[in-house]
Amino acid sequence: VTFTVRQLAEWVRGEVLGDGELRIANARTLSDAQPGDITFVEHDRHLTAWHNSRASAAIVPQSVPVNGRPIIRVADPLMAFVHIVQQLRARPAEASPSISSAAHVHPTARIAPGVSVGPFAVVGEGSDIGQGTILHPGAIIGRCCKIGADSVLHPHSVLYDDCILGNRVVIHANAVIGADGFGYRTQNGQHNKVPQLGWVEIEDDVEVGAGSTIDRGTFGPTRIGMGTKIDNQVMIGHNCKIGKHNVLCSQVGIAGSTTTGDYVVMAGQVGIADHLTIGDRVTILAKSGVAANIPSGSQVLGYPATPHKEQVRILNSMEKLPQIRKDVARIKKHLKLEDG
Amino acid sequence: VTFTVRQLAEWVRGEVLGDGELRIANARTLSDAQPGDITFVEHDRHLTAWHNSRASAAIVPQSVPVNGRPIIRVADPLMAFVHIVQQLRARPAEASPSISSAAHVHPTARIAPGVSVGPFAVVGEGSDIGQGTILHPGAIIGRCCKIGADSVLHPHSVLYDDCILGNRVVIHANAVIGADGFGYRTQNGQHNKVPQLGWVEIEDDVEVGAGSTIDRGTFGPTRIGMGTKIDNQVMIGHNCKIGKHNVLCSQVGIAGSTTTGDYVVMAGQVGIADHLTIGDRVTILAKSGVAANIPSGSQVLGYPATPHKEQVRILNSMEKLPQIRKDVARIKKHLKLEDG
Amino acid sequence: VTFTVRQLAEWVRGEVLGDGELRIANARTLSDAQPGDITFVEHDRHLTAWHNSRASAAIVPQSVPVNGRPIIRVADPLMAFVHIVQQLRARPAEASPSISSAAHVHPTARIAPGVSVGPFAVVGEGSDIGQGTILHPGAIIGRCCKIGADSVLHPHSVLYDDCILGNRVVIHANAVIGADGFGYRTQNGQHNKVPQLGWVEIEDDVEVGAGSTIDRGTFGPTRIGMGTKIDNQVMIGHNCKIGKHNVLCSQVGIAGSTTTGDYVVMAGQVGIADHLTIGDRVTILAKSGVAANIPSGSQVLGYPATPHKEQVRILNSMEKLPQIRKDVARIKKHLKLEDG
Repeated sequence: VTFTVRQLAEWVRGEVLGDGELRIANARTLSDAQPGDITFVEHDRHLTAWHNSRASAAIVPQSVPVNGRPIIRVADPLMAFVHIVQQLRARPAEASPSISSAAHVHPTARIAPGVSVGPFAVVGEGSDIGQGTILHPGAIIGRCCKIGADSVLHPHSVLYDDCILGNRVVIHANAVIGADGFGYRTQNGQHNKVPQLGWVEIEDDVEVGAGSTIDRGTFGPTRIGMGTKIDNQVMIGHNCKIGKHNVLCSQVGIAGSTTTGDYVVMAGQVGIADHLTIGDRVTILAKSGVAANIPSGSQVLGYPATPHKEQVRILNSMEKLPQIRKDVARIKKHLKLEDG
Repeated sequence: VTFTVRQLAEWVRGEVLGDGELRIANARTLSDAQPGDITFVEHDRHLTAWHNSRASAAIVPQSVPVNGRPIIRVADPLMAFVHIVQQLRARPAEASPSISSAAHVHPTARIAPGVSVGPFAVVGEGSDIGQGTILHPGAIIGRCCKIGADSVLHPHSVLYDDCILGNRVVIHANAVIGADGFGYRTQNGQHNKVPQLGWVEIEDDVEVGAGSTIDRGTFGPTRIGMGTKIDNQVMIGHNCKIGKHNVLCSQVGIAGSTTTGDYVVMAGQVGIADHLTIGDRVTILAKSGVAANIPSGSQVLGYPATPHKEQVRILNSMEKLPQIRKDVARIKKHLKLEDG
Repeated sequence: VTFTVRQLAEWVRGEVLGDGELRIANARTLSDAQPGDITFVEHDRHLTAWHNSRASAAIVPQSVPVNGRPIIRVADPLMAFVHIVQQLRARPAEASPSISSAAHVHPTARIAPGVSVGPFAVVGEGSDIGQGTILHPGAIIGRCCKIGADSVLHPHSVLYDDCILGNRVVIHANAVIGADGFGYRTQNGQHNKVPQLGWVEIEDDVEVGAGSTIDRGTFGPTRIGMGTKIDNQVMIGHNCKIGKHNVLCSQVGIAGSTTTGDYVVMAGQVGIADHLTIGDRVTILAKSGVAANIPSGSQVLGYPATPHKEQVRILNSMEKLPQIRKDVARIKKHLKLEDG
């Protein structure tokens, strides 16, 4: 099945420049596109890539000039391209919401209208699932949990007892919310467990990646603020309070009782020690190890994490270290200074 | 529902000082507590926090003086507080142990009395589950496994075939015990799998965190010693022998065939190379990379991991490195030494 | 049950030297073997270990001389030992392939002959499972997936919609293939999700470890090349193109849109930034952080990753840094140079 450039432009309410009758079979990115494809140009800085792309047409912002191939001008090329890809790859319609007969829903659970519960999903005693929420196959909701509206729990995601999710929360496959915090007291040579009686509270519009784990608080909540996005395999320890609109990249680990402000960004494999306070709009670069509080607005790097500019100076000097070492030896020899 | 301080004191056999008739509605930690709450003071070093806390009453050790608000003196304030929290938050009673009709138990499996098997849990051929053990929904036990008494397997934890768990072992959600070790031989440009024929043996009182993975040995066991506590997202390679009462924090990775002594502590994101021997009572600080054996009693830090004091001197000097670099250039200029 | 050395030799078509009538009860590695056991010697460099081993007999390569105990000479001692271990530990036969009545297979799914589908496994609408493939209990296959022949999906592994697996692919327990990439645009203070419309393509003979996550592409594929082996808890971001015969050790993280060549090796806990190109036959040592392209054939180490020899010189100098610092201070004092 092919469509004309003009038809695609109608789907996204764009303006056609060039041959609107050209037929398009597929939609791929600038680097992957083949003849017969439509692609998209997000910024002017992609003009060379567009020039070199094999695509037959493109969706472009207002600023991109005609270059011989038909273009569709729109305000938001990325979202227009998303729309066209979705149209071209007509997928089977989602089944209408229903509760699978192969799910296990406790009789005391409250399931709002429009909820989907897939096969082998479990909803525990006294839990409450809000309107339009989807529990994919094998999602497990413990006892006394509360999930808002329009949330999505992907396959095999697990909520332990007492966890609270807001609206439009997405939990990806195999993520675990509310497992016991890592709390012990060592007495007579044994690590005795401190019962973990708290819970996890995840506010609206949070997304939690596949395989991530967020532990329940010891007595109260571990909290994830509104709009925060958490990538795969992230670990958040018990009693943490993560602020709003944070971005935590893959394999980040945050030890217990640490607090972050709003708009904090942590790149991949960052580690944060326990009981720290990270200010608003802090950026922590990849693989950094944070062992002290960080004031708002800082950008830090390294181990121990240091203001970014300072750390870059240190790293640059490290490359020169073998030479510095030689120089110092030479100077000592020159000055006839003994070792000491 | 509220209770008097005196009633709470009776629950924990504590001594009331001050107004025993004051009514308490909730129990929260020092920093979270509100008027009407009881809190707890664990050490004298929390006296200022108790002074500043909004709590109406506290459970305290013998050493804490009266400060106007009612207190309950006990030997172990943390455990007394745990008890009070559990009483105040009356949860629905656990269902009595039973084998869900929606579980899948092989007819040759031996299930002791008092075992709980949740819906969608699986027990494989020839496996043996000890008295009082709980298999939560979706826990999967392979073939020929043996689990002791009073163990808990949380939702979607997985045991591959032949694994052995002791008594009172806790495996958290989505942990995987006994997957194949990462063993290949490269022949003619292909990585050919070495069959992983061993198993995993986990001794009594071990806890394994959510999403952690412990690989089976190549021919024999990967072993986790008695009382060892493993946090979330920890990886233990094939053929490792982890000692007793170790504490392995989140995101630690231990490559194959490494052995640890007893009472080893690894902080978050530590990595240990393969075929190493870590002595007793070694502490490895966060994010360290260990590439050599470590003698008993050491505390190490950094990459490569170095005795802690030495590494701190190195890290302190690194901060000065840009200045040292400038100084050396200045000295060379002063001495009219050429580069070289 | 015991067997004579001669019987074992017949199993592996080896040549017996010494007492072929000696009876063997068990097979263990050199270090674990006890009297009555057979063991194996893989290389000449294990001769001392064989000399010291308590084993009663050994499987050896041609080069190992007789030392008093019976030996079985074979071309490939490791594989011969594997064969003997498998024979000695007679396991219950695998059940013949069947589709569990407790599985949930969509009526439109195509299941080839000889496929096994365990209890609580799910196969979604329009998916296609090739001959001889095994879906273990709780494996979940989304909609419109395509899996080749003789692949194995271990318990609770998850494929999101549209994923493509080749032949002889192994996905270990709790691995997640095709979850959404971590893509957002920040607009008006909110991180708005970029829909992730791509998929994951895994070529023949790939193995993916327990708990690993490979995200779907934004518009096209995330691709894993033929014969690549991925350990546990590895994270591969959206749009990555991983080459053929790579070896990615545990807890490696690769950010989005990075490309690797063939025969790349990454040791444990390595992190790679996004949009990079790693050449063929690159080796990246443990815990390295890669922030720039790496040319083919390099061996790199450290943060930022640097050619291995260079980094070793830097690390060696770092040990001397506190002394260098003292020396520089002494020189400045000697020369009466002021700070500055």
